[in-house]
Amino acid sequence: LNRQFSYQALHGTNQDDGLPRTVESLRAIEINRLLGPKFESSNSAGESNSSDEGKKEPVDVIIDLHSTTSNMGVTLIVTEGDPLMTQAAAYVMQKCPPEDRVRCVMHTHPNRNVRPNLSSIAPHGFTIEVGPVPQGVLRHEAVEKTQRALHALLEFLDRRISAPAELQADLKKWYASKNGQVPCFRSITALREGEMSGKITWPSASDNPNFPAYMVHKRLQDRDFELIKIGDPVFVDLEGNTIKYDGSHGSPVYLMFVNEGGYYFKSSGTGMAVAVRANFDLETGELVQEDDREDEL
Amino acid sequence: LNRQFSYQALHGTNQDDGLPRTVESLRAIEINRLLGPKFESSNSAGESNSSDEGKKEPVDVIIDLHSTTSNMGVTLIVTEGDPLMTQAAAYVMQKCPPEDRVRCVMHTHPNRNVRPNLSSIAPHGFTIEVGPVPQGVLRHEAVEKTQRALHALLEFLDRRISAPAELQADLKKWYASKNGQVPCFRSITALREGEMSGKITWPSASDNPNFPAYMVHKRLQDRDFELIKIGDPVFVDLEGNTIKYDGSHGSPVYLMFVNEGGYYFKSSGTGMAVAVRANFDLETGELVQEDDREDEL
Repeated sequence: LNRQFSYQALHGTNQDDGLPRTVESLRAIEINRLLGPKFESSNSAGESNSSDEGKKEPVDVIIDLHSTTSNMGVTLIVTEGDPLMTQAAAYVMQKCPPEDRVRCVMHTHPNRNVRPNLSSIAPHGFTIEVGPVPQGVLRHEAVEKTQRALHALLEFLDRRISAPAELQADLKKWYASKNGQVPCFRSITALREGEMSGKITWPSASDNPNFPAYMVHKRLQDRDFELIKIGDPVFVDLEGNTIKYDGSHGSPVYLMFVNEGGYYFKSSGTGMAVAVRANFDLETGELVQEDDREDEL
Repeated sequence: LNRQFSYQALHGTNQDDGLPRTVESLRAIEINRLLGPKFESSNSAGESNSSDEGKKEPVDVIIDLHSTTSNMGVTLIVTEGDPLMTQAAAYVMQKCPPEDRVRCVMHTHPNRNVRPNLSSIAPHGFTIEVGPVPQGVLRHEAVEKTQRALHALLEFLDRRISAPAELQADLKKWYASKNGQVPCFRSITALREGEMSGKITWPSASDNPNFPAYMVHKRLQDRDFELIKIGDPVFVDLEGNTIKYDGSHGSPVYLMFVNEGGYYFKSSGTGMAVAVRANFDLETGELVQEDDREDEL
């Protein structure tokens, strides 16, 4: 569902091929009707003529729970300049135990109208991404990590209503030693058209755009949020030759979503995501310091 | 494809519901034509009238490469009383490095005609099962483990033709300290109708037979080939209550395929597989010693 909530996808303007809508697309329209609509024009006639659900008030906050086959630990994905959600991320990072490895990643695109993911329906979106988990499998400890992050987030929202001054005092205290800045990761801007953010890509098999011609090198497997630099092995080809990082996205860079099953598909943008470290301001949620790559070596 | 090679599945006698064949079923028929046919009657008119491929000689050996979401390491699955394949397993276990954790499991059913898996097409079948690997993902180190086991198996077959006496001398030497017996695991006989072997099952959601109502307890996750006994936690329900092992398959027992994604489906028999330790005779491939459970505590 990550790419079903663009204007085009919801309103059928990319259905010119005459094919019937997929189950995924139909479900996205249903969710948009229940929780949104994301775009005002969805309220007009013709969109929700089959029920009255379209007349609901749009929700304020959407929390989207995800799993990934990559070793992302617990990753909170929020939007720059949305202090409600960035403060929530700052709160969750403090409340979850260190062994849950909770990190925060900023969406590449602050404007939700250009993001096609589910939580972009609401003014405030928060994604909890937990891995490694195979698709179609429930892992007890991953479910527990998700629950801890979710409960901390709900506690934040509850305290923000019941005792906002105390909550702000706690947050300020926790991040005082960092001058009110909160550490996060920021995706690198996409180099290829149609991608949400930058990726180190593998070539696909000649007869199947969804089957990789390279494998992720074993030295990178499960090494999400670790640094690579020019010359480090990234892939291996079918003959066993190592493919090295060419520095195309800068060097050094952090890797994210290493060998994520969903990224084998051309429609999702094949490859591994790349990121740099950053900080956001606790008050405003704005990025206040770009990475200093010299520090990261 | 694990359940597509029964007489009924290949010959359409379970198609009475009038539904069209699935892609999986069509592919199984194609593979059976290329490598078999498994059942003699497949040669008769009507089955392969669309091409001449059905007239090929059946192959002698089928090596079936599998991955599993469970932590099965490298598991070689062979048939009791087939010394070609059981000696091959004994060879591969010696040739692969200890860190690959190569183990041997005996099929529950020696008669291939009652087994519905792909390798049952040939007189000699050998399955290499490697995990943990998510579905739809290539893990470099898992591919390498598969290659090492496969190459050792091909080396065995090559030596068996080129220098059989030397090969037998090597095997005898390697297992001399065990009196010519080779350690393996043996699946416990199925308690439920339609299952290939015994499983500790979870209940399914009331509205979906393929969605579990319990999760595998985190203490068992990734603990394939470890022992459990009566009273050990096996599942957790949606309220977080621990479900303990009731000894239904004996106690202690070894677990296999712990939280395998394919076993979430009712058609595959939901749950975790259970096994006991055994040994097979290097010469005959027959099980020579049932487990002594007292030894295993």
